[in-house]
Amino acid sequence: MRQLSESSITDAVLDRFAACDDPRFKTIMTALVRHMHDFVREVGLTEAEWMAGIQFLTATGQTCTDKRQEFILLSDTLGVSMLVDAINNRKPTGALESAVQGPYYWEGAPERPLGSNLAEGVKGEPAFYSGRVLTLDGAPVADALLDVWSGDGEGNYDMQLPGQTEMLARGKLRTDAEGRYRFRSIRPASYPVPTDGPVGMMLNRMGRHPYRPGHIHMIVSAPGFQTVTTQLFVSGDAYLDSDAVFGVKESLIIDFQRHEPGIAPTGEAMAVPFHTVEHDFVLCPVMEPALQD
Amino acid sequence: MRQLSESSITDAVLDRFAACDDPRFKTIMTALVRHMHDFVREVGLTEAEWMAGIQFLTATGQTCTDKRQEFILLSDTLGVSMLVDAINNRKPTGALESAVQGPYYWEGAPERPLGSNLAEGVKGEPAFYSGRVLTLDGAPVADALLDVWSGDGEGNYDMQLPGQTEMLARGKLRTDAEGRYRFRSIRPASYPVPTDGPVGMMLNRMGRHPYRPGHIHMIVSAPGFQTVTTQLFVSGDAYLDSDAVFGVKESLIIDFQRHEPGIAPTGEAMAVPFHTVEHDFVLCPVMEPALQD
Ligand SMILES: [Cu+2]
Ligand SMILES: [Fe+3]
Ligand SMILES: [Fe+3]
Repeated sequence: MRQLSESSITDAVLDRFAACDDPRFKTIMTALVRHMHDFVREVGLTEAEWMAGIQFLTATGQTCTDKRQEFILLSDTLGVSMLVDAINNRKPTGALESAVQGPYYWEGAPERPLGSNLAEGVKGEPAFYSGRVLTLDGAPVADALLDVWSGDGEGNYDMQLPGQTEMLARGKLRTDAEGRYRFRSIRPASYPVPTDGPVGMMLNRMGRHPYRPGHIHMIVSAPGFQTVTTQLFVSGDAYLDSDAVFGVKESLIIDFQRHEPGIAPTGEAMAVPFHTVEHDFVLCPVMEPALQD
Repeated sequence: MRQLSESSITDAVLDRFAACDDPRFKTIMTALVRHMHDFVREVGLTEAEWMAGIQFLTATGQTCTDKRQEFILLSDTLGVSMLVDAINNRKPTGALESAVQGPYYWEGAPERPLGSNLAEGVKGEPAFYSGRVLTLDGAPVADALLDVWSGDGEGNYDMQLPGQTEMLARGKLRTDAEGRYRFRSIRPASYPVPTDGPVGMMLNRMGRHPYRPGHIHMIVSAPGFQTVTTQLFVSGDAYLDSDAVFGVKESLIIDFQRHEPGIAPTGEAMAVPFHTVEHDFVLCPVMEPALQD
């Protein structure tokens, strides 16, 4: 076809995929082209707007480094990441829900004994976390692995602290025979996503703030169960209703009980106020039949 | 809203634009989010596919340099550029149609006298171009400017030739009192878009070739008339029906008449075969009333 119009060009592009021998790739690219073209037609995109889009995408790619992923941030702030999460992690009621991993995961945190303090030398109010890992029927899951990380009490991850080359506020823990876990860390604080790149400019122009409510990240796994990457959010945080990356789920909001200086659950005497958190994680078995259809 | 579902997350994202004080930006971002989310839901994008998309976009941004724009190439090869062109350059029948500028424009080509050879030292079969610039009523447009560029007869632009720092096969010409233009260049050849980057990998995986039919680029302008950025395509080219960037329009395909060695239209004696091309350009006035509604 040699004379493509505003409407016929879409099918002309799709016709070109005829020789594609990867059916899934063809399905994805076909849908992508249709939705992109519909978008352009719907808004009547001008040539200047198209060029602004090209420049934005280019700058976004060029902002990415080993330590920074601006396209993931773009996906996060437009709700695409949590949509993909929702589609791929449908859970039965009561089961631990998922949240995105985010950009601050650091492979290889050390495994620590139950009750360890993961936050030696980390700023923030101490918090003692405990609870159980359970099956959907309420049976304990022994030997489940919790891979935990968070920023400090001021909202900064170790990777973001100038000159900090060692891990902070990270560690792995295994549940005991009754499925129990316990560890000490800090109460996490809200923090802004990086705003000095193209995505920050976009948020600003949209009239949006860049803050995430305080949260602690966790990957919970156990043999025979579905691994869950998730976040626990601090109840009462000012940004729970407007998380810049749309990550909050009701079941992931947990209460931090504040205590005056005194004896902590570990038996140690605390000279400063501290928090306690108790939360159980319910895991789904791999190949849960009810989820297969 | 704290419990976002696969369907409610889209409205939750759109609600965040409430404070945006740029109505056009809000319109564009609203449509973009809707179509992106619909795309993700429609194909049921997996987390691995999402990550492949993130990596593709990142690599595309990082392939861009001062001399290469991989996101424009992506837009071109998915038909988005020509769709934007079509929407923004609706022309009455008979008027010169537009085509995309492409990545090989080089600002500041010299103005040359009518009849000049723009292709001194350029590989390829000589071609003598001539014709008129006219109004919709057929009146000549004197002093119209043609800004002309092409690759050589092997499909390479000057910018692509190693060590070539001077312009080749480029120049500006002005029509005479009868609206006539004439210049010598070469007959352009088909060429592949760059295939050594992410877009090349994409085309390959789609089962598509990267070729564009032979064409000469031109920006035609005159005071009081709408400027037209366009391309003229070589009739008979093998890729007219499958241009990798969907640029071909029927009215832009022109005949190259081949002549055995002999006397050229300029009067010079040609020792090699040469071509002649005759084509008129019809320009629309600025603020053409029929196009205003
Ligand atoms: Cu759509
Ligand atoms: Fe985080
Ligand atoms: Fe070209």
